[in-house]
Amino acid sequence: MTQSLTVAVAGLGTVGAETIRVLQKHADLLTRRCGREIAVTAVSARSKSADRGFDIAPFDWYDDPVAMAREADADVVIELIGGEDGVAKAVCEAAFEHGRHVVTANKALLAHHGTALARAAEAAGKSLNYEAAVAGGIPIVKAIREGLAGNTIERVYGILNGTCNYILTTMRETGRSFDDVLEDAQKLGYAEADPAFDVDGVDAAHKLAILTSLAFGTEVDFGSVYAEGIRNITPLDIEYAGDLGYRIKLLAVARRTEHGIEQRVHPTMVPLDTPIAHVEGVFNAVVAEGDFVDTTVYQGRGAGGGPTASAVVADIVDIARGSSVPVFAVPAGDLAAPQPADMDLHEGAYYVRLLVQDKPGVIADVTAVFRDESVSMESMIQRSQSADEGDPVSVVMTTHNTVEKSIRGALQRIGDLETVVETPRMIRIGAL
Amino acid sequence: MTQSLTVAVAGLGTVGAETIRVLQKHADLLTRRCGREIAVTAVSARSKSADRGFDIAPFDWYDDPVAMAREADADVVIELIGGEDGVAKAVCEAAFEHGRHVVTANKALLAHHGTALARAAEAAGKSLNYEAAVAGGIPIVKAIREGLAGNTIERVYGILNGTCNYILTTMRETGRSFDDVLEDAQKLGYAEADPAFDVDGVDAAHKLAILTSLAFGTEVDFGSVYAEGIRNITPLDIEYAGDLGYRIKLLAVARRTEHGIEQRVHPTMVPLDTPIAHVEGVFNAVVAEGDFVDTTVYQGRGAGGGPTASAVVADIVDIARGSSVPVFAVPAGDLAAPQPADMDLHEGAYYVRLLVQDKPGVIADVTAVFRDESVSMESMIQRSQSADEGDPVSVVMTTHNTVEKSIRGALQRIGDLETVVETPRMIRIGAL
Repeated sequence: MTQSLTVAVAGLGTVGAETIRVLQKHADLLTRRCGREIAVTAVSARSKSADRGFDIAPFDWYDDPVAMAREADADVVIELIGGEDGVAKAVCEAAFEHGRHVVTANKALLAHHGTALARAAEAAGKSLNYEAAVAGGIPIVKAIREGLAGNTIERVYGILNGTCNYILTTMRETGRSFDDVLEDAQKLGYAEADPAFDVDGVDAAHKLAILTSLAFGTEVDFGSVYAEGIRNITPLDIEYAGDLGYRIKLLAVARRTEHGIEQRVHPTMVPLDTPIAHVEGVFNAVVAEGDFVDTTVYQGRGAGGGPTASAVVADIVDIARGSSVPVFAVPAGDLAAPQPADMDLHEGAYYVRLLVQDKPGVIADVTAVFRDESVSMESMIQRSQSADEGDPVSVVMTTHNTVEKSIRGALQRIGDLETVVETPRMIRIGAL
Repeated sequence: MTQSLTVAVAGLGTVGAETIRVLQKHADLLTRRCGREIAVTAVSARSKSADRGFDIAPFDWYDDPVAMAREADADVVIELIGGEDGVAKAVCEAAFEHGRHVVTANKALLAHHGTALARAAEAAGKSLNYEAAVAGGIPIVKAIREGLAGNTIERVYGILNGTCNYILTTMRETGRSFDDVLEDAQKLGYAEADPAFDVDGVDAAHKLAILTSLAFGTEVDFGSVYAEGIRNITPLDIEYAGDLGYRIKLLAVARRTEHGIEQRVHPTMVPLDTPIAHVEGVFNAVVAEGDFVDTTVYQGRGAGGGPTASAVVADIVDIARGSSVPVFAVPAGDLAAPQPADMDLHEGAYYVRLLVQDKPGVIADVTAVFRDESVSMESMIQRSQSADEGDPVSVVMTTHNTVEKSIRGALQRIGDLETVVETPRMIRIGAL
């Protein structure tokens, strides 16, 4: 039998500890699947004494993960420290400098330094595998990088943040407000104490930037991702969405347009007759559309120790089996320069909700603005939220395909009308 | 750059011709993705003169595909002839004997000879790739063989036959009968002139046998698959299913039980709140449940030239990139002997529909049989199908978990009751 594949693990939090548990529980099976043993030889973590349910004595201990990446007896370094640069980046760089493969779950790192790390991996002739960085346990990186390799990808999109999907699902099921559900999610451990990273769309944007490079063969371009979170979504919008045949999801979308590559993360009205509308709770889903394969959909758990460790171990197995694939599906030197499309040029349909005074002429004023800004209305519902005459009423409109710049211009002007008593709300409608 | 990967294609029907089109259209992209050119060098088909939209003159022509597999200037032989043995099998065997990799879309061949072919591939030190054989364009073989390699699979199931799913979807949407919709499907090219292979569940059983080996590391055991098709499904059953919160799908299920490995293909009541209930028309879907990753779901087109060719090309790309994985995820010599569970021992809930005379005591007789056979009833609906008094009435029952042998015994006895005017219908309810 071939020599063992030796592995050093940097970071023994939930995912790191679970990765070691998988390797221990399935040691025999993995040896048969790989044709060689996978042996953890070294670990590094903040605390040497924490109880992780297994004994770390058999492993070489390093206080400094970068020193481990340089010096450990390891073919592969698993980076599970996190963070967009700092130690995590130094660990990966040191590993490549010393001729080791890298497996990482770190989306922030790849979103910011993916292209440079891909170059470093290729210069070292080593793998950089990152299945766990996008959509947790779902093997979506493998699907795009290998499974759909016979296609050009036209569009890739998905639900990439389980926290937001949990919050939106719970808001719909219970009618409760964003703040209220967020608080619960924090208690349940589905949301961080500082939720900004998740609920403002940054985490999904990191993952999308990686998917974009994989799908379109461009350098990672996190800076061009348009990101808008879910803080402004109200139970009322969710209710109207249902009436109109939609679910509201935080969707991350990358696609080629005539203006370049769009990368955008924002709440989206998803038609109820699409698979992705039914992806609920903490589940993630990705849709990849290829020119020959047509639409493919992948669903699963996007976070958590088990699913993430499953992805990390799959990456290790690939290395143990001797499989090697360009980091972003083509060699780093062949990645095209980013071609960001201006969000102002985005075209799509829109949902708009206004709170207006209940008096004659208001609708005429609003529709006049739409006409002036060349926004074509598809439907309108006017509904009183209260029994009291004179109270403001909700007006919900949907538009035909229009340009982002036009709808923004129109909403700016509509918000300035005296009869409009609240900042207009806008949610993009997905053409899926 | 490394030398070209040379490819010989046996069979130039829809999939074979489309495979060559993918390789031609994406030649530059594939060269970058693989680090080497993929060059078709030889072809074989029934007709040399058929118009396929591309010129076959640049390829060496073989009347005999087996001779091609022996003699062609080719690293890889693509078997797209079909059939469970005969020429297709001879092509694969000849390819391995002459040190060539094999890519095939042939589920019947693998269902019948998968283990032997895996041994032949390993003896030759070559790949046997078959992504296109299961669920068409969906990269499900790769997902299980590689993406979920860190898991033991507890259960794998799915909608593996697009023809049946199209027929069931259309029956539900239109209320039309099986025969009627089948006739249309044949006109549209979604069903063969002889539909038995699809509608009796044989095609899904072939694919399931392959998934079972991949998931559980057992020798391919098509002979043990229990298969029941969709010919007996009526619009009335579909309507009742909807009332009870289900969709009827032809589901293929493999799972470990205390009695061994169950492999079964049959119409199944799928709960509406599961992703798979919403997989409609010709689409396929597979659910794989791993001990660490939990539930993962894969959807896409299960047939057609483009999706199937996409899978074939992905298999070629893997070979071009030098990736090599055991055929059924572990070496063929390590595959365990089949451990078939007797279908009589299957446990689950059941839907039962009776047509009975509308008179006192009928229900008492039926429930007495259930009691005698230890079948515990969960619900009952009695509904007159006609306004005329004295006409037979429908009785629909669902059971709690029970054993297949018990329900079959009960239905046998119930069918013999004088007051029961039609053979009882039974559909299994999926616990998904």
